Amino acid sequence: MRGVIMHAPGDVRVEDRETPTLVETTDAILRVAAACVCKSDLWPYRGIEAVDGPAPMGHEYVGVVEQVGEDVENIEVGDFVLGSFFASDNTCEICRAGYQTHCVHRQPGAATGAQSQYVRVPLADGTLVATPGMPDDDLIPSLLAASDVLGTGWFAAVAAEAGPGKTVAVVGDGAVGLLGVLAAKQLGAERIITMSRHADRQALAREFGATDIVTERGDEGVARVKELTGGLGAHSVIEAVGTQESMMQAIRSTRPGGHVGYVGVAHDVALPGEELFFSGVHLHGGPAPVRRFLPELIELIWDRTIDPGRVFDLTLPLEQAAEGYRAMDERRAIKVLLAP
Amino acid sequence: MRGVIMHAPGDVRVEDRETPTLVETTDAILRVAAACVCKSDLWPYRGIEAVDGPAPMGHEYVGVVEQVGEDVENIEVGDFVLGSFFASDNTCEICRAGYQTHCVHRQPGAATGAQSQYVRVPLADGTLVATPGMPDDDLIPSLLAASDVLGTGWFAAVAAEAGPGKTVAVVGDGAVGLLGVLAAKQLGAERIITMSRHADRQALAREFGATDIVTERGDEGVARVKELTGGLGAHSVIEAVGTQESMMQAIRSTRPGGHVGYVGVAHDVALPGEELFFSGVHLHGGPAPVRRFLPELIELIWDRTIDPGRVFDLTLPLEQAAEGYRAMDERRAIKVLLAP
Repeated sequence: MRGVIMHAPGDVRVEDRETPTLVETTDAILRVAAACVCKSDLWPYRGIEAVDGPAPMGHEYVGVVEQVGEDVENIEVGDFVLGSFFASDNTCEICRAGYQTHCVHRQPGAATGAQSQYVRVPLADGTLVATPGMPDDDLIPSLLAASDVLGTGWFAAVAAEAGPGKTVAVVGDGAVGLLGVLAAKQLGAERIITMSRHADRQALAREFGATDIVTERGDEGVARVKELTGGLGAHSVIEAVGTQESMMQAIRSTRPGGHVGYVGVAHDVALPGEELFFSGVHLHGGPAPVRRFLPELIELIWDRTIDPGRVFDLTLPLEQAAEGYRAMDERRAIKVLLAP
Repeated sequence: MRGVIMHAPGDVRVEDRETPTLVETTDAILRVAAACVCKSDLWPYRGIEAVDGPAPMGHEYVGVVEQVGEDVENIEVGDFVLGSFFASDNTCEICRAGYQTHCVHRQPGAATGAQSQYVRVPLADGTLVATPGMPDDDLIPSLLAASDVLGTGWFAAVAAEAGPGKTVAVVGDGAVGLLGVLAAKQLGAERIITMSRHADRQALAREFGATDIVTERGDEGVARVKELTGGLGAHSVIEAVGTQESMMQAIRSTRPGGHVGYVGVAHDVALPGEELFFSGVHLHGGPAPVRRFLPELIELIWDRTIDPGRVFDLTLPLEQAAEGYRAMDERRAIKVLLAP
């Protein structure tokens, strides 16, 4: 089969790879209907994370079940399914509490190599959720978004306790931040402030429910959020970047007693204890337990209540994956869908 | 009147000070019935925080109202009252949300100088709460505890979401940590693990409701908590120390999705972003909004449901304050009550 391999920073190629087969009796093999490039794929692409030899890429996928191991019960051959980037059993105490990314049997690198024609998914019963039937083509981008960026933005909004009567601020205008806006809107937030300086992303944020745009960053961005909230700060702040500046901007934009939901993967971040202490905010985040939200998100997509697939502003055949990476690296695209 | 003055690290004296008088129309003057030495008073006493010239000491108090300003409506001359170490209006949006320590009109150093015969309390209507009548003498230590250490331990337990079915771990066996145990018990926690290596404090923790004692610290302490919780960590962890080690011990003792309530004032703490991110815990804390809990705590004390005054293991006349500081500094006492 064909699949994406990263050889070195900036060097992404589509090559022949061995088609995956069942390894454990709890595995499933999917024929990938759509995959995509994640912002986290850009860390090694940009040389910020090391690339240890040729690495199969991709961890977001939707597809049709081709084979299942003999212990798989909830998923059948022919089902259209999606799952998150962590495999989880969905039955342990941690999963039952809604933290499947911390499942006691979790497999973080589970569906690695999903930018390809086929992918093996471990713990299929716990990890995968089937759609009510075969989706119309136009639903596929939204279902694919649910498998990572929507699930992550949704978790951030839940962690930030977005809800009725709340003012929500969003730091980060990538796919996750934009879908955090969509999630906050769905959760009933009264006012949603997006921090963005890109016209196209501002426009999509408004479509998703943003009521205010703040173009300033850092301390000036914080001051602007305070101005918009009677000097108090937002009730709920979504952090979707993962840098020192973005974390501090999020914490400082939150009112005392308010909630920060942070899902940007922390790179070289150290939170000053004394400032955090006197801020009085709640802090919650981490790798999003997307699996918790999948049934609800699939329903909202199936009913066409939400259209998170709008974040894919470039669709390419799998064979042109290298161009997809370039477009995201150069910020010509918010998020790139790859069709095998 | 007589009052405690700190002249330099280690140099605490009881001297004649001017009796406070009404300054604002929203002030009250109290005749102090009991005050005490706070662990935070030891920071300057030990030279860790600077002492800028002679400083009146103390911020925990209970007493009888002697005078009120003309705009005070809720409190009357003759009332027995208590209040927290922050003056707050209790009417602003932040107060109404339960974060009186972040009140938009807050006065952090409000009742400074409470280790004395009289004290001025600003924003009396918002800050002070009257007891149902004149308390019996044996209730005074408990009411005094409510004004800071109990209120702080209670907030930590609430922030850590201690409750029915939960396993709570407590890092720190000072008065706040011990009263965090009492709070967790009252809130219905199923199991309470105290981390302590002092026999007297372990005994008091057990009286307050601790079910398990862990004497190990740091990574070994974390391993022991994990062992006691099926490898997962506690649901709720109370942090009542405020050092880098104690914060990391608290975070690492918490299961993914669990809650850390931290009330130790952070000194030279920096939280590593990546570890925090992948821990998946909730973090909440800061200067405790004691005022939020006062009506409930007064009721529990008045009904003799709880006896938090047990943390005072040394009572001295105000004139012997210097000995009180020494006893706490040398860990001969958990907490010292000063009777004017």
